[in-house]
Amino acid sequence: MIELAENRYGKSRVRLMKVTRHDHGQDLREWTVQVLLKGDFDTAHLLGDNSKILPTDTMKNTVYSIARTSKAAAMEDYAKELADFLLSRNPQVSSASIHVESTLWKRLTVDGKPHPSAFMRGSGELQTTSVERAHGGTFRVRSGLDNLVLLKTANSGFEGYIKDSLTTLPETKDRLFGTAVSAEWHYTASDVDFEGIRKTIRETMLRTFANHDSKSVQQTLYAMAESALEEVAAIDEIEITMPNKHCLLVDLSRFGQDNPNEIFVPTDEPHGYIEARVRRKP
Amino acid sequence: MIELAENRYGKSRVRLMKVTRHDHGQDLREWTVQVLLKGDFDTAHLLGDNSKILPTDTMKNTVYSIARTSKAAAMEDYAKELADFLLSRNPQVSSASIHVESTLWKRLTVDGKPHPSAFMRGSGELQTTSVERAHGGTFRVRSGLDNLVLLKTANSGFEGYIKDSLTTLPETKDRLFGTAVSAEWHYTASDVDFEGIRKTIRETMLRTFANHDSKSVQQTLYAMAESALEEVAAIDEIEITMPNKHCLLVDLSRFGQDNPNEIFVPTDEPHGYIEARVRRKP
Amino acid sequence: MIELAENRYGKSRVRLMKVTRHDHGQDLREWTVQVLLKGDFDTAHLLGDNSKILPTDTMKNTVYSIARTSKAAAMEDYAKELADFLLSRNPQVSSASIHVESTLWKRLTVDGKPHPSAFMRGSGELQTTSVERAHGGTFRVRSGLDNLVLLKTANSGFEGYIKDSLTTLPETKDRLFGTAVSAEWHYTASDVDFEGIRKTIRETMLRTFANHDSKSVQQTLYAMAESALEEVAAIDEIEITMPNKHCLLVDLSRFGQDNPNEIFVPTDEPHGYIEARVRRKP
Amino acid sequence: MIELAENRYGKSRVRLMKVTRHDHGQDLREWTVQVLLKGDFDTAHLLGDNSKILPTDTMKNTVYSIARTSKAAAMEDYAKELADFLLSRNPQVSSASIHVESTLWKRLTVDGKPHPSAFMRGSGELQTTSVERAHGGTFRVRSGLDNLVLLKTANSGFEGYIKDSLTTLPETKDRLFGTAVSAEWHYTASDVDFEGIRKTIRETMLRTFANHDSKSVQQTLYAMAESALEEVAAIDEIEITMPNKHCLLVDLSRFGQDNPNEIFVPTDEPHGYIEARVRRKP
Repeated sequence: MIELAENRYGKSRVRLMKVTRHDHGQDLREWTVQVLLKGDFDTAHLLGDNSKILPTDTMKNTVYSIARTSKAAAMEDYAKELADFLLSRNPQVSSASIHVESTLWKRLTVDGKPHPSAFMRGSGELQTTSVERAHGGTFRVRSGLDNLVLLKTANSGFEGYIKDSLTTLPETKDRLFGTAVSAEWHYTASDVDFEGIRKTIRETMLRTFANHDSKSVQQTLYAMAESALEEVAAIDEIEITMPNKHCLLVDLSRFGQDNPNEIFVPTDEPHGYIEARVRRKP
Repeated sequence: MIELAENRYGKSRVRLMKVTRHDHGQDLREWTVQVLLKGDFDTAHLLGDNSKILPTDTMKNTVYSIARTSKAAAMEDYAKELADFLLSRNPQVSSASIHVESTLWKRLTVDGKPHPSAFMRGSGELQTTSVERAHGGTFRVRSGLDNLVLLKTANSGFEGYIKDSLTTLPETKDRLFGTAVSAEWHYTASDVDFEGIRKTIRETMLRTFANHDSKSVQQTLYAMAESALEEVAAIDEIEITMPNKHCLLVDLSRFGQDNPNEIFVPTDEPHGYIEARVRRKP
Repeated sequence: MIELAENRYGKSRVRLMKVTRHDHGQDLREWTVQVLLKGDFDTAHLLGDNSKILPTDTMKNTVYSIARTSKAAAMEDYAKELADFLLSRNPQVSSASIHVESTLWKRLTVDGKPHPSAFMRGSGELQTTSVERAHGGTFRVRSGLDNLVLLKTANSGFEGYIKDSLTTLPETKDRLFGTAVSAEWHYTASDVDFEGIRKTIRETMLRTFANHDSKSVQQTLYAMAESALEEVAAIDEIEITMPNKHCLLVDLSRFGQDNPNEIFVPTDEPHGYIEARVRRKP
Repeated sequence: MIELAENRYGKSRVRLMKVTRHDHGQDLREWTVQVLLKGDFDTAHLLGDNSKILPTDTMKNTVYSIARTSKAAAMEDYAKELADFLLSRNPQVSSASIHVESTLWKRLTVDGKPHPSAFMRGSGELQTTSVERAHGGTFRVRSGLDNLVLLKTANSGFEGYIKDSLTTLPETKDRLFGTAVSAEWHYTASDVDFEGIRKTIRETMLRTFANHDSKSVQQTLYAMAESALEEVAAIDEIEITMPNKHCLLVDLSRFGQDNPNEIFVPTDEPHGYIEARVRRKP
C-alpha cells in the first residue's frame, strides 16, 4: 500500500516593488515573496478534488493586496501579516510559511546630497526572512542574509592539517580568503526590532571577519557566529555557510618571475564548503 | 554560554569527465561530485587546530584518484567506493556523504550510425545520487533527477477550487501544464542495479505524466510517484517537486481576434510550487 | 556641437508559445522574439516628442497578434510577416529587424509511440533567425544556431605551434575537443525551404565535426563551414564561433597512478575563442 | 570556390586578481581579460599548419606575467602593455585586441574606519575597456561600463505616442523608470587619465539620470550621452544601451483597493530596448 506523507504547495518568485511617498522624497523596497501552505490536501492528491485548494494565483493576489494595506517597514512584520491573513481565511490550512528576499537598492547621491527619487541597485547580497505559523501557534521567525561576498587579503593561513598520500596542498601562513556568506538566525521572540537587529548582526559578522586572525574557514565561521550571539540577546541560534572560494597563487617561476602573494586566479569551482550551526547552550 | 552544534564541511563542484576506451569506441561520463564529512571537528572551530582536518583539496584529489581505479559504471557505486575510501583513512570522520550529479551527453548519430567518439550535450536534466555512510553503518542511497522539463498540451484542467474576494483565476478544463520535475527516491538496499532501476523509474514517471488526465499538479505528481513505487520494488519512498511553470493564454479579443488555446506566454516567475513525499505504508 | 548618430529601439524577450492542434495530435513551438526599428526618431531623443514612437508595448502585442494569423511553419517566414506588418503601418520606420530564437521541445515517446500531446525540453541549443527589411527593400535573412555543445574524444591533436618563453602547454596528438558552436549563415534568397535547409546545414556540420581529423579548432571550424557551403547552394556565407572548452588531463602520477587519457577536468574558464567567416568567392 | 574571410582567435575569461601591498594596507583589483588576435592564420584553417599559431594557453600565461611586471593602475594602461607585448613577439599578428572587465570590490569599513585588508563585493556593475592596436598603428581605446542598474520613482512619464488598433498601453505622467545602463565611449587620445575620466563620465550620467524630467527612455538616454560629451573633452563619442525594465502597476481595484503608484511588479521579460550613439559633430 502507498500513502501520501508530507506535502505542501504555494507560490514562488512573487516579485513586489513598493514605493512609499513622503513629502521629502520616496522610499523603495523590492521583495520576492514565497508562500507555502501545509494542510488537509489529501483529496486533491488522491482524488483530484480541488475543493480545499486555494489557487496559487490567489496567493499571488494576496501578496499584493496585503502589501498595499500593510504599514510594516520590516519584511518580517509584513510576512507575519501575510501568514495571519491566509490562516484566518483558510481553516483547511494547518500552517503557513512565508519567505521573503529583499534586494538591495541604494539611494543615489547627486552633488553630495541624497536624491529623493533616484536609486541604484546594490550588490547581489540578499536579506531574507522565513516566518512560519501553525493554526493557533506562535510565530517562528528566522531571518538571514545570503550571498554576502567577502575577501580578506591578510591574516589568513592554513597549516597543521592531515597529510596523506593524496595531499598536494602546501601549507601557508598567508593566503587570500574569499567567501560568500549565507547566514540564518532564529529569534526568541516575534515582536522585536527586526531591522535594527539585522543591522547589528550583519555589522558584527563583518567586523569579526575583517579582524579575525584566521587559522581556517571553520575557525572564522565560528568566531563570526559567536560574536553575533554575544552581541544580540534576541537570537539563540545562527547557522552559517561559508564556501571557500579559492584564489590560486599563479606560479610565475616558470617564466623567471617571483610572485610575492600578488597575482592570483580567482576560481568558482571546485570550492570548499563549510557550514555550522552555533547556539546558546540550553 | 555558546556551543557548536551540527557542522560539516567538504568540497563542492568537483567536475570529472571520464572517458572509457573500448575497441569499438568510447564512452563518456561527466560527473560533478560533492564530498561532505561530519566528525570530530570541534577543535578546528574553537581553537584553530587543524590536526583533524582533511583538506578539501585532498578530497578533490581523492575524487580523481578513485575515479581512475573504480570499475563502477553507476555513479551510485562510484560514490560508495569514494565514501568508503574516505572513512577508512579518517577515523575522526563519523560519516561521509557523497553527492554526484551526472550531465547528459548523447552519442552523435552520423550517416545513420552511432559515432564511436563524437558526442552532443543533452538537455539540462541532471541525474543525481546522494550516498551516505556512518562509520560502521550501512549505506543510505537516495538517487533522483533534477530539472526534467515537461509540458503537456492536453488533458489538463483546474476547476472546483476555493473562490474568495481575491480570486481572479478563471476555471479551465483545458490548459497547458508545464513543469520542471525534481525527484529523489530511497533504495531499500545498496547493492542493486542502479542504472536499470533509474531508467525504469524515469520512464514510468514520464508515461504517467503524458497519459494522466490531470485535475491539478498535485494529482499528477501523486500519480507519478505512485506509479514509480508500484513499478519498482527496490524503492520505498519518493519525493517529487513540480513547479507549475505557467503558460498564460494571450487575450487577443482586444484586437478582435479569437485565441482557441493556441497562443500563450510562457513565464518563469511567479510560479506555483508543489511538493510531496509518497511512500509505502509501513 | 553634439549630434545623434545611429539609433534604434524595440522590444526584447517577447516569449511566445504556439500550440497547433491537429486531429491526430498537437505541435508545439516556443519562440523568443525581438523587434528592433530604425527610423526618424530624432525628435523623441532631442525634444521628448513621442509622436513618431510606436510603443514597445504595442510591438509586443503585434508579436502575439501576427502569431495568431500567421500560417508560417518556419520562424523565418513568421519574422518576414511581422517585419512587413510593422513597416506597412509605420511610415516613420526606415527598417525593421526581427530576431527569433527557437527553444527545442521534443515529443515524448511513450510505450514506443510518439505521444500526441506530451513534450520534453531538449538541449540548450537554440535555433535562430535575423530577418531585416528596409522600406521598399528586399529581405535580408540570416539564420543560425547557438550553444550547440559538442565533444569529440578521438581524432583531435594540437602540435607544431609557436613555442616561446611563456609556453607551458605540451604538444598532444590526442586530446578531448569540446566546444559550443554558434553559427549564422546568409541566404541568397528569402523564399526558400528554411527548415529543410537548416536541417541539412546542421547535420552537415555535425558530420564534419565528428569525422574530422582535427589539427586545431581553426581547421575543424573551417572544415565545418566549408562542408555547409558545399552542401547547400542557397547560402553564400557562414560565420562560426567555436570556443575551446578545455578538458584538462588530471596529473595522477603524483599519486603513483597513470592516466591514459581517461580522467579529465572539464573547465568553463578560461576558454579559447575561435571565430571565422567563410564565404563563396565572389 | 570557397574562401576564408575575416577570422580571429584568442583567450576569453582569463581571471586575474592582483593584490598590491602597501605599508598602510592593501589594494585589490579583479579583472577578467580577453585577448583576441588577427593576422596571417590562413594555413592553420586550410592546412592544419599551426606554425603561426600562438597557443591561447600562452596568451593566458602572458596575461599573468605582464600583470606581475606592470605598474599600471588603470586597466586601460595594462591592456596597452599587454597588446604591445604580444605584437612585439608575434610578427604574424596584424592586430591585437584586449578587452578587460573590472569587478567592483569595496573596502570594508569597520568601526568607522577603512579596513586595510578586508573587502566586500560591490554591485554587478562592470567597468570595461577595449584596447586595440594594429602593427605600426596607434591605440584605439574604448572604455565603458555595463549593467549599471538604475531606477527612478519620479519625473518619468510616457505620453503622446502612436495609438493604433494594437495599442493597449495607457499614457502616464508618472511611472517607474528602471534600466540597466551599458555605455561605451571612445577616447581621442590613448595617454590620458583613464580612471579620472571614467569617474567623471559615470557621475555625470548618474546626475543626468536622476535629475532628468523624462518624457521617454530615448530622451533620457540622449541627455545622459550629451552631458557626458559636454563634461569630458577627451571623448568624442558615446554609445549607450538602456533596456526599459518595466515595473507594472498592480491593478488592485479588483479587490476594492486603490493603488496610487505604490505597488508594482518588477519584470525581467519582455523589456524595451533602446540604444543610440551620440557624438561630436565632425
